[in-house]
Amino acid sequence: MQADVLVNGKQTDSISVSDRGLQYGDGVWETIAVREGKPQYLKTHLKRLILGCQALNISLPDLTVLNVEIKQLADTVKKHAVLKVIITRGLGGRGYRSNNSSFTTSTTATTRIISLHPWGDHIADYQKRGIDLQLCQTRLAYNPQLAGFKHLNRLEQVLASAELSDDKQEGLMRDFNDNIIEGTMSNVFVLSQDNNIKTPRLDDETGCGIKGIMRQIAIDWLIANNYKVSEEPLKLDDVLNAQGIFMTNSIIGLWAVKSFESKTYTLPDFVPQFNAFLDSDR
Amino acid sequence: MQADVLVNGKQTDSISVSDRGLQYGDGVWETIAVREGKPQYLKTHLKRLILGCQALNISLPDLTVLNVEIKQLADTVKKHAVLKVIITRGLGGRGYRSNNSSFTTSTTATTRIISLHPWGDHIADYQKRGIDLQLCQTRLAYNPQLAGFKHLNRLEQVLASAELSDDKQEGLMRDFNDNIIEGTMSNVFVLSQDNNIKTPRLDDETGCGIKGIMRQIAIDWLIANNYKVSEEPLKLDDVLNAQGIFMTNSIIGLWAVKSFESKTYTLPDFVPQFNAFLDSDR
Repeated sequence: MQADVLVNGKQTDSISVSDRGLQYGDGVWETIAVREGKPQYLKTHLKRLILGCQALNISLPDLTVLNVEIKQLADTVKKHAVLKVIITRGLGGRGYRSNNSSFTTSTTATTRIISLHPWGDHIADYQKRGIDLQLCQTRLAYNPQLAGFKHLNRLEQVLASAELSDDKQEGLMRDFNDNIIEGTMSNVFVLSQDNNIKTPRLDDETGCGIKGIMRQIAIDWLIANNYKVSEEPLKLDDVLNAQGIFMTNSIIGLWAVKSFESKTYTLPDFVPQFNAFLDSDR
Repeated sequence: MQADVLVNGKQTDSISVSDRGLQYGDGVWETIAVREGKPQYLKTHLKRLILGCQALNISLPDLTVLNVEIKQLADTVKKHAVLKVIITRGLGGRGYRSNNSSFTTSTTATTRIISLHPWGDHIADYQKRGIDLQLCQTRLAYNPQLAGFKHLNRLEQVLASAELSDDKQEGLMRDFNDNIIEGTMSNVFVLSQDNNIKTPRLDDETGCGIKGIMRQIAIDWLIANNYKVSEEPLKLDDVLNAQGIFMTNSIIGLWAVKSFESKTYTLPDFVPQFNAFLDSDR
């Protein structure tokens, strides 16, 4: 049971079965770290949420209202928590069309779902110890229209995550052309043998993958700390032959990889510095 | 408001926001025609529902219970109605993994959502008059792992449907290799100039599209009525240059196309016979 959930501003943990978020995955979402009451990088998250609504032509939520509701839940967080925001197209009849047509009954305003979730102790543990990464067989489909933003059609990630052995913390996903794209819940970077940092280029040509907010923060921080960072197509060999591998997302910050397939890796020395930077960057 | 909804056997129109059907589109569904209390082709629909559960590794619903609940709603139907069945993986924590791991809190049993919806008068109208078909620009992504069964990740169909002008009743979708695959909510057939009937081949190589239950019923009926039917890759020109075009699904039965792009088509003469066959086939 989730005690801390607001649906359109009301404290409830249920939504209508007619919601298009359930019927078709017709919505977008963000997962935001909250530290001592403050949602981290909130503006950037809301910016991407809005880009997603625009990509799907979902009416934009009232940002003032959304901010008030997010603050209402975030204010209750003493230490760390995870805040999830979902915006769906709202209620709809039976049928894909969301406008009033012969196929549907009606559509109302968008649905806002804001929920608070516990912060796991494992997050800091893995920041220190590193993780074991597994190569997933589930591939990411090419569809530029659905790439780059966080929508609710996540079966590829669900299937890829289901592949993971219990002793693996994250899985690495490829597209159907064998390009490395991202983790099931994170972006991936490699530290190559020549000390350059590379991360998969994610654009319309790639046609899948999400540019995580933490991905950009990591790129900016690495450049500011005199690393050379490039976005380019990466293959499995680029990852296997790297000096180091690391994964980023808004909740985990940066997790370095200590093993991938049969290889082991040393944790890049900037890992604790970067995660300490996140702790202080409010 | 939907009065006729059963969620796990209880009359309610709400589900938990934690349901993985909402969070990730982690579920499968069927839309079934009900005529005078009888769900049409129920066994075939349930068979595909189970195939979908197996593809996603979702625990199979108890078929006895499911049949009782479907009957409970179908029994109230005097004439025609649409019955929708959704099975989701159930409740889950935050995180794609559905098993108990450091990433999730817990997972309970699958969620069964059975709902009854009004039958539209437009269905029979368009069976008689034919429809206007539009070519959609939204493409279907290649992913054999997610093709062939009805899952809840339907954003491609939502985006394609949103393209349709108000005076178009259905849209035709292609993959990224310009193969014709299906309608947004139906399968497509063409009657070629040499009186043969063709419908897109949908298999692992195609990697998208759903073999509708009505598609197979139409194929069987056409063959029984001495038409030559083949499943093969179709391109836009095959459709444009056809003698006739028709679309099938479990609710609409068979709708012939009277216009597509700038071309007009005559309705194949078997259309009324086939729809009359459906009316009598219980």
